[in-house]
Amino acid sequence: MKITFPDKNVREYPDGTTAMDIAKSISEGLARNVLAAKINGQVSDLSRPINSDAALELLTWDSQDGKNTMWHSSAHLMAEALEFYFPGIKFWVGPPVENGFYYDVDLGGKQISSDDFKKIEDKMIELARKNNVYIRKEVPKQEAIAYFTEKNDEYKLDLLQNLEDGNITFYTQGNFTDLCRSPHIPHTGYIKAVKLMNLAGAYWKGDEKNKQLTRVYGITFPKQKELDEYLAMLEEAKKRDHRKLGKELDIFMFDDEVGPGLPLWLPNGGVLIEQLENLAKRTENEAGYKRVRTPHLAKESMYLTTGHLPYYAESMFPPMEMDGEKYYLKPMNCPHHHKIFGNLNASYRDLPIRLAEYGTCYRYEQSGELFGLMRVRCLQMNDAHIYCTEEQFASEFKAVNDMYLKYFKIFGIEKYIMRFSTHSPEKLGKKYVNEPELWLKTEDMVRRVLIESNIPYIEVPDESAFYGPKIDVQVWSAIGREFTLATNQVDFAVPARFGLTYRDADNTMKTPLCIHRAPLGTHERFIGFLIEHYAGNFPLWLAPMQVAILPISEKFNDFAKSVSQLLNNYDIRALVDERGEKIGRKIRDAEVKKVPFMLIVGEKEMNEKLVSVRKHGEGDKGSMTPEAFCQLVKKEIEDQLLINK
Amino acid sequence: MKITFPDKNVREYPDGTTAMDIAKSISEGLARNVLAAKINGQVSDLSRPINSDAALELLTWDSQDGKNTMWHSSAHLMAEALEFYFPGIKFWVGPPVENGFYYDVDLGGKQISSDDFKKIEDKMIELARKNNVYIRKEVPKQEAIAYFTEKNDEYKLDLLQNLEDGNITFYTQGNFTDLCRSPHIPHTGYIKAVKLMNLAGAYWKGDEKNKQLTRVYGITFPKQKELDEYLAMLEEAKKRDHRKLGKELDIFMFDDEVGPGLPLWLPNGGVLIEQLENLAKRTENEAGYKRVRTPHLAKESMYLTTGHLPYYAESMFPPMEMDGEKYYLKPMNCPHHHKIFGNLNASYRDLPIRLAEYGTCYRYEQSGELFGLMRVRCLQMNDAHIYCTEEQFASEFKAVNDMYLKYFKIFGIEKYIMRFSTHSPEKLGKKYVNEPELWLKTEDMVRRVLIESNIPYIEVPDESAFYGPKIDVQVWSAIGREFTLATNQVDFAVPARFGLTYRDADNTMKTPLCIHRAPLGTHERFIGFLIEHYAGNFPLWLAPMQVAILPISEKFNDFAKSVSQLLNNYDIRALVDERGEKIGRKIRDAEVKKVPFMLIVGEKEMNEKLVSVRKHGEGDKGSMTPEAFCQLVKKEIEDQLLINK
Repeated sequence: MKITFPDKNVREYPDGTTAMDIAKSISEGLARNVLAAKINGQVSDLSRPINSDAALELLTWDSQDGKNTMWHSSAHLMAEALEFYFPGIKFWVGPPVENGFYYDVDLGGKQISSDDFKKIEDKMIELARKNNVYIRKEVPKQEAIAYFTEKNDEYKLDLLQNLEDGNITFYTQGNFTDLCRSPHIPHTGYIKAVKLMNLAGAYWKGDEKNKQLTRVYGITFPKQKELDEYLAMLEEAKKRDHRKLGKELDIFMFDDEVGPGLPLWLPNGGVLIEQLENLAKRTENEAGYKRVRTPHLAKESMYLTTGHLPYYAESMFPPMEMDGEKYYLKPMNCPHHHKIFGNLNASYRDLPIRLAEYGTCYRYEQSGELFGLMRVRCLQMNDAHIYCTEEQFASEFKAVNDMYLKYFKIFGIEKYIMRFSTHSPEKLGKKYVNEPELWLKTEDMVRRVLIESNIPYIEVPDESAFYGPKIDVQVWSAIGREFTLATNQVDFAVPARFGLTYRDADNTMKTPLCIHRAPLGTHERFIGFLIEHYAGNFPLWLAPMQVAILPISEKFNDFAKSVSQLLNNYDIRALVDERGEKIGRKIRDAEVKKVPFMLIVGEKEMNEKLVSVRKHGEGDKGSMTPEAFCQLVKKEIEDQLLINK
Repeated sequence: MKITFPDKNVREYPDGTTAMDIAKSISEGLARNVLAAKINGQVSDLSRPINSDAALELLTWDSQDGKNTMWHSSAHLMAEALEFYFPGIKFWVGPPVENGFYYDVDLGGKQISSDDFKKIEDKMIELARKNNVYIRKEVPKQEAIAYFTEKNDEYKLDLLQNLEDGNITFYTQGNFTDLCRSPHIPHTGYIKAVKLMNLAGAYWKGDEKNKQLTRVYGITFPKQKELDEYLAMLEEAKKRDHRKLGKELDIFMFDDEVGPGLPLWLPNGGVLIEQLENLAKRTENEAGYKRVRTPHLAKESMYLTTGHLPYYAESMFPPMEMDGEKYYLKPMNCPHHHKIFGNLNASYRDLPIRLAEYGTCYRYEQSGELFGLMRVRCLQMNDAHIYCTEEQFASEFKAVNDMYLKYFKIFGIEKYIMRFSTHSPEKLGKKYVNEPELWLKTEDMVRRVLIESNIPYIEVPDESAFYGPKIDVQVWSAIGREFTLATNQVDFAVPARFGLTYRDADNTMKTPLCIHRAPLGTHERFIGFLIEHYAGNFPLWLAPMQVAILPISEKFNDFAKSVSQLLNNYDIRALVDERGEKIGRKIRDAEVKKVPFMLIVGEKEMNEKLVSVRKHGEGDKGSMTPEAFCQLVKKEIEDQLLINK
């Protein structure tokens, strides 16, 4: 049989070879690290024989599917340890989650607390070291029912109701057997580090009329070092929590009377927003974008044309009824931009036309889903739509990617990946517009640009938008947390729905392609990310207050103010600390506020017309004239923003 | 009796002296120009005797009340002329309007057209020259009814139904007698110039079930020259119509599916907006404002606190129902800013706090009231709120006025007036918050600042906001049309309602005063004004395209593009006309688009690395290096924006 690998290499193996055998045939190292296999798109145990030609991906810890397999197996391991300490315990479900896994359990009236975590973790490690194999067994329904009836386990019996013969498997490792569909890692020895995270109540089947079960959360790693790093990252993330720092640094607030999910930006947040917009506008200006402004609402009929209604209605704010018509707050800027493109009567000479707007959109999120700046109802979006010909598409798309790379450099984002979502041919005309050739063509163009730009990416079938391929940009903050920053989309369907055309050289009217892009995402999410990323220590160009001028005593306030005036003339954000406090206290307060530069002025400085420069977190930088300091600041900002580079 | 004049001077006159006699006692010139009198706030005929102490204002053509009196008298004059040509004509009402007057008439089946205007105007002038006095006569109701019954005039009989004995007066001039309350000018000779403007249909009493009357519009002036200027201004205003130029210059558009009154700003409009915002932000930065950002909506409960609901509900967009609560689009930014001030925990050291935002507000206007950019539903407002102590109020208010004056200079607005609206003591606790002392104190502070700043202003009693005195800023465009640009308000009531406080030096909590100000008004109205003011010839700093680079043939396109690149590096908005057109055509097209500068590049320019400069409407300016041209542009922009001045 022929096995096709993700890099399109094909190798021949005898029928019935297992994925683990194939891993071994490639390298011993791979075999040690492989956790599961993806066979024709389906995640599976490594030990199951493959019986015909197949596409095979060997999943390690580096892939989410690999992690999920390990975490799901870890849930079984935790169950075994729990059963040891809580005999008679009953189990509901134990899936992997974003970070680790949980198991919902019925302790039959017994109590568990975080004090028990240590002994359970120790027991899990003890059992893991036994390298117990996860043994798969297909079980007839009758036998399965008999087994759990004897165990008096109403939960698994409930699960069995919805399963049919041929689809029922038990997995056993050590002394624990569970009804389970698969997949699992080969044996428990892969689990080297274990941490139980917390406990929560969870109603059976999520229904508050049912019994409350105990949800036990845990996480495991293939190396102790990775667990240590993860826990350190969590600790650091807590310190950098954007909600906590956002309050301490006076960046944003919420107000009950304004409404949940609707942040109000305080003056310091206002500076962040202005600076980000200045960066975006300068960058987009240089890249030939044109700025437009559009209202925050439109009539129902427009959203019927776009298809937002009824398909996207749940994510939209409810309508306003006016003059016998329904108006909706805009959930996206595209339709308004399409209207403007339509008004420009473009010819092929005018293309590409790039319309940019920091447009504010409103989307409905359940109030329970709202989270600080990360999940909000108000989105100030770094939006733009590029209307271009097919011939222009590749270079336009590449230019967009280059803009991302420039931003990553400016913001010190070192780890990122583009998640490239494509269509699924079977769902054409249902989930995806029925343009098979355009799908293949544009996906191919996108893929080639990604490869040529050397941008790390993964391809995810069957997750694109309905009107074209999509790229989600995932970035990692300085402490290693992953964020979805932005989404790019190729749109070859909606321009036609809107009747958008340009006059081509041959005088015929053609429909342009449209690229939706928003490299800086929304102010809300991006500033939330930056607060964590920088732990509030914003780089000089972005810092709400750039320079604190600290007179040693009130005698020097006037000189300090003259320095402040000079700095302001250079567009440097500076403030004099005129309080009657000691200089040590003033320095400490400026450090707490994370002001990048402090200028200390006393007798000597005033007489010699100098300032003593102190840098946040770095200390004394010597004396210089105020003008020299301004130049130094200007230079550092230009370097940070890659200006003249 | 004692007569008090507006300048607070008091003179004594015998009881029964008329206002005309008093005018004569002051000067013959005044007596020639005075049109009516305001006696104790009531506009009245000059000929009526005054019988006790009174406040007297003598109204000339310079005051709106003077104009209205003349125009109302002109309606009677027109009626006399109409009756001459259309015997049996019946009259409904004939009030003064913003520019002139109209009379609604029933022609009894006869036809009138604009072809008849000339002869009616001539007849009016002929009648006017007779200096016919407007003779007032008090008439008992029975007699009035008898008079109009005999005339078979159902319209005046209808009016009489609602009038009582003692309130019924007839006015007669020449051969025309009308039921009329007054006031009138002394005689028809004051009317020197007459123009009938147009005809419209008007349902009797505005009810479309009633008979349709003919509305005849006219305007009159005390001098022929003023009429000529007015007609020339109208002609020019038509050419400068912001809706026409806005379309020709690709500044804004409307779209049926977005909705009426909701402009979409095309890229050229986007430049205007960005430049205006840059100017505002720079100016406000220098003046110590801090920028905030707030969402476009809030819960009903906030607008109940502010009093917008229910009092302002008619001007608000309808609510959105979400999570069982009503949300409203914000009609003003103040409440959101108040929330931010409340969050800042200000002490007296922090005041004044000036919160600025180009916030977009939404207000409902009847669709029939919408008019281009002048009456819209979407308002991007140059808003800010200044929170200060009473001691700081005068200097803050003066600084706001100075900002206006700076803007007037930048925009070449030479004629302006501040319309200062005060409260009315009788309506305290009803129309106005019941704080008699604060009213007098703040009104006095405002008045003193206006006087000290030497700003032309008029004071209008009983027109302030409910929470404090108000200033409407009226400006005149280059062609002499009047616009309301912006409104400033002093607010001493709402901060208390919001529980806003600051900690004073004595450690007590005090309520700040709040100044609402928006010198550049809204983008919508201000850009509408600027389009007319500049006739689309925007000054260099504001022009959507600043420089058109025109290669003499395609051979020079590359050199032209290198020049364009240089200009872009200097943030100059330049574009190369790469078309294969003749240079004459390219120059013509750039002139039509009102691009301030054209750079012509051909053989000589390319070889010598020069550009030939042409200025819009001025012509050839000679050759220079591209760098020298950039410096010239920079310098002109700095001069226009009063930078470094």
